[in-house]
Amino acid sequence: MHHRLPEEPRVAVVGATGAVGHEFLSVLSQRRFPLAEISLFASPRSAGTRVPFVRDGRRHELPVQPLEEGSLQGFDVAFFSAGKGVSKAFAPAAAAAGALVVDNSSAFRMDPAYPLVVPEVNGEVLDRLDGPTIVANPNCSTIIALVAVHPLHAKARVKRMVVSTYQAASGAGAQAMRELEQQARDFAADQPLRTEIFGRQYLFNVFSHNSAVGADGYNEEETKLLLESRKIWSDDSVAITATCVRVPTLRAHCESINLSFETPLSEDEARELLRRAPGVEVIDDRAGNRFPEPLAAAGRDPVLVGRIRGDRSQAPGMGLDLFVAGDQLRKGAALNAVQIAERLLPARRGAATAELVGARR
Amino acid sequence: MHHRLPEEPRVAVVGATGAVGHEFLSVLSQRRFPLAEISLFASPRSAGTRVPFVRDGRRHELPVQPLEEGSLQGFDVAFFSAGKGVSKAFAPAAAAAGALVVDNSSAFRMDPAYPLVVPEVNGEVLDRLDGPTIVANPNCSTIIALVAVHPLHAKARVKRMVVSTYQAASGAGAQAMRELEQQARDFAADQPLRTEIFGRQYLFNVFSHNSAVGADGYNEEETKLLLESRKIWSDDSVAITATCVRVPTLRAHCESINLSFETPLSEDEARELLRRAPGVEVIDDRAGNRFPEPLAAAGRDPVLVGRIRGDRSQAPGMGLDLFVAGDQLRKGAALNAVQIAERLLPARRGAATAELVGARR
Repeated sequence: MHHRLPEEPRVAVVGATGAVGHEFLSVLSQRRFPLAEISLFASPRSAGTRVPFVRDGRRHELPVQPLEEGSLQGFDVAFFSAGKGVSKAFAPAAAAAGALVVDNSSAFRMDPAYPLVVPEVNGEVLDRLDGPTIVANPNCSTIIALVAVHPLHAKARVKRMVVSTYQAASGAGAQAMRELEQQARDFAADQPLRTEIFGRQYLFNVFSHNSAVGADGYNEEETKLLLESRKIWSDDSVAITATCVRVPTLRAHCESINLSFETPLSEDEARELLRRAPGVEVIDDRAGNRFPEPLAAAGRDPVLVGRIRGDRSQAPGMGLDLFVAGDQLRKGAALNAVQIAERLLPARRGAATAELVGARR
Repeated sequence: MHHRLPEEPRVAVVGATGAVGHEFLSVLSQRRFPLAEISLFASPRSAGTRVPFVRDGRRHELPVQPLEEGSLQGFDVAFFSAGKGVSKAFAPAAAAAGALVVDNSSAFRMDPAYPLVVPEVNGEVLDRLDGPTIVANPNCSTIIALVAVHPLHAKARVKRMVVSTYQAASGAGAQAMRELEQQARDFAADQPLRTEIFGRQYLFNVFSHNSAVGADGYNEEETKLLLESRKIWSDDSVAITATCVRVPTLRAHCESINLSFETPLSEDEARELLRRAPGVEVIDDRAGNRFPEPLAAAGRDPVLVGRIRGDRSQAPGMGLDLFVAGDQLRKGAALNAVQIAERLLPARRGAATAELVGARR
């Protein structure tokens, strides 16, 4: 018998005061995720505050409790987004106590004991869970790339993928978003720019992703994209390289993606596959020069895909270029995690959810 | 006998009031380009103003004359940066009247009758000119990419190059730079953002390059990079694809470049070649997470190159990833054009210039 959540699960949100935590509450509210109860947790430093939550049109003020040993007893679902350390310390016990943990940190992503899931790509692994466990939510850049590329991969198999990212402040948290906005105000006021988060000017600048760089020269963000994509596709032979870069945008990432296929796939076939793909919205208006932009993706669910074109550097049909944009806080984090939980709701609700997420082909 | 300029040429700058025109004057002044005289031209709309020019430490106010038929008689060098239409209308006559025209527009770049030159890459074609002619200055993205990639191409031959750009406002002119800054002020003042130049919010946004998109889905900026690189390298077999994107920065472009080589080239060899390469400055501090940034390139001559690493998606030694930044107005436009003229100065001066530009290997 495969694991199912009760019709109205008891839900915990760990890291409720951060940028992703805030988005968890919006997404649960907007999607009318069924709830017997919802409890919010944060570090003792952030606990004690109250956070607004809209349920069935009524606004509630939910208290934020300090996360302590034993806090996560008696929940059916626990969404974690409080960093790797908190996940390592609290997620295994929460799962052992009966909760499906959907963990947005990198703590368990590459652990073979736990699934790493983008519902549109490998959601079927969720249908085979035999009890409460930890399900890892992939890194934002990985999710956004794979929602766009998977429909093409399923048809023509991606042999090689070259990705360059244009990543927003939100990936570094709410404080980074505020600092970028503050720098615009400082600039306008002709004041020195405050640079506490990244130690450098972010406004009117671009810089290599601020994660640590390994011995092979790849930073952690790039390595995540390489390794997580292969795990999600269950295919270690896909060759991937990535260059991850921060640009001064607030909450949606863009990615320039170059693909090489094993079997031919025309630009028109690709566009048609993407038009029908779950979680994707094609924006590819060549005459009007309208393509995916972070501001058009911000606050929305779909990954926007455009600039779909046959790659002139490869044999006809054997490669494509794409440009995609996706909300880092929604599909890149909270929305994907909530979709994972939705897939485990009982059948009737599950059917409605499959429609929301889009059916697997 | 090959063409040489006089020791102190009479110089015209056409398009003197634009962003690149302004940079021409800075570069000529800073490099102490020898001048018998310097005359500035612009459209009748911009003519009549005076523009500051520093020569040998003294500030002059040069009048801007309207560009008319016959204006460009009696010059040894004419730098053009007033758009394709003005170049087509005035450059051939200026060359016929004896001027070396260095044209920053796209009017003559792909015309086989005229050379297209990045001095560090194919400067030797200038040594074979047999009289005054038009020399085309490549597109900014092309120059910045090739200064960085050529030293590797010369050693291991680039078979394929995948480029994603992060382009600044300056490529769309001084007004675009002002609009981006104004949007930061509008944001800070909580006012609607003015969007006259690009018809969309640029602050905190990213968008596909604003040039026209062709039937093959490539925009003009991308097509320029593909075709110009091949012409400069005299090699139509190099496979290139590019995705050109504007990011909200002011005057330096970045490019994420993925290379595939014909013969193996290690990361260490590549770094060493780049350290010795003319016009290149390697910034590749993995421990400190310091790599090329537009703000570090702005106002400076070299193309900054970093994130140099063996590509994990290719066989060891057969591919590299790079991230580069270069000032769009300087090396991407005015500086490259002035370096073209410097190479044609008489021998003694030419020797000094060769040192500035870096000697050809």
